[in-house]
Amino acid sequence: MAFRSVCVVGAGRVGRSVAARLAERLPTRTTGRELECGDADLVLLCVPDNAIAAVAAEVRPGPWLAHMSGATPLAALEPHERRFSVHPLQTFSLDLGPEQLDGAWAAVTGENEEALAAGRELAGLLGLEPFDLDDDERPIYHAAAAFASSFLVTLHEVAAELMEAAGAPAVALEPLMRRTMDNGFDHTGPLVRGDWKTVERHRQAIRERRPQLLPLYQMLTDTTATLLRVR
Amino acid sequence: MAFRSVCVVGAGRVGRSVAARLAERLPTRTTGRELECGDADLVLLCVPDNAIAAVAAEVRPGPWLAHMSGATPLAALEPHERRFSVHPLQTFSLDLGPEQLDGAWAAVTGENEEALAAGRELAGLLGLEPFDLDDDERPIYHAAAAFASSFLVTLHEVAAELMEAAGAPAVALEPLMRRTMDNGFDHTGPLVRGDWKTVERHRQAIRERRPQLLPLYQMLTDTTATLLRVR
Repeated sequence: MAFRSVCVVGAGRVGRSVAARLAERLPTRTTGRELECGDADLVLLCVPDNAIAAVAAEVRPGPWLAHMSGATPLAALEPHERRFSVHPLQTFSLDLGPEQLDGAWAAVTGENEEALAAGRELAGLLGLEPFDLDDDERPIYHAAAAFASSFLVTLHEVAAELMEAAGAPAVALEPLMRRTMDNGFDHTGPLVRGDWKTVERHRQAIRERRPQLLPLYQMLTDTTATLLRVR
Repeated sequence: MAFRSVCVVGAGRVGRSVAARLAERLPTRTTGRELECGDADLVLLCVPDNAIAAVAAEVRPGPWLAHMSGATPLAALEPHERRFSVHPLQTFSLDLGPEQLDGAWAAVTGENEEALAAGRELAGLLGLEPFDLDDDERPIYHAAAAFASSFLVTLHEVAAELMEAAGAPAVALEPLMRRTMDNGFDHTGPLVRGDWKTVERHRQAIRERRPQLLPLYQMLTDTTATLLRVR
């Protein structure tokens, strides 16, 4: 199978990049409210999660129908049966173009081999590296993405707040965070050294200066200590 | 002031990189247990935090004395008075050389302008970008480093565990985490969209599959929601 034309519905962060990439590779129509997808052989929903079911219900039966949501089940595409999902495991910016798809992986979900093949075909067209994901596993998979992206932003904001409290430049955190990744997430610092005196200094400083962050520090310390013991 | 020779005490992750960098730029002696630092005009302690005070007490008075710990106060260098601290805000690997100092920032702490100037001089020799940090602010500063590095490792491990639970490849997380940084920690995902239905799907999946991670998910969600409201 090879898609000859794709109709992209939705022009948010994901929809714009996807439409731009497909436009480089295929005749692609980008549609708006009217859902005038003509004779496209794939209608690709890049709409908010809570709009998928309503939009799917409006699509004329016939072509393949797919969504790009992480946690939404395929059942949201009812009544369509030729359906699948491709979720790019990436964060998108309106300031970037289709190049932000490059290098990212994508979760492909389908209920039979033909649907999975269609999903992998779309992932390939988009420049994404596909892996299969069961429909039932989508919520736990998407929770992993929340830890890797949303909560990474949160960690950075918390660390930046503590740097500012110390009168230190928050920008100094970035080389540390990048190297932590570059070194394969190798664990260094007081916890891996069993240096509880330093941990107690952190705790006392947070208690005095940013007490609202103490429960988060404590829980992350406990989780880290558990992971280090298990390892 | 310019240091003519530096004696590095300690050969762990930091000590080895620092000694290698100084060897490129200065006559440097790396010492072991005997503390035979000869006539070096700076003795630089790269020893574990809990050993700093004991080692400092053994150093013959005269030269400058400095430590490279993040959270340890300058008082640990008693009875020396010509003292300062330079803490590289970086994670170090034994598999890398002095190049891992490049691009990193360093917190310089000293009790007078001469000591601060000595600290900045050392930072410059090492290839670090210095910023001044009050001695009292070291613990809250170092807690920021824990969020940025130790807890980043923890986030990645938790996300990888959830990916494995879903039957998805953990390596797929890396392009997402890197782009999250490259995009300036711009927040995307269900929380910034106010998509609480997706958050509830995450919660339910974690409760069923990895219940021990639910309190961490909940606390990070709450912290993120608070930060988004404040913003």
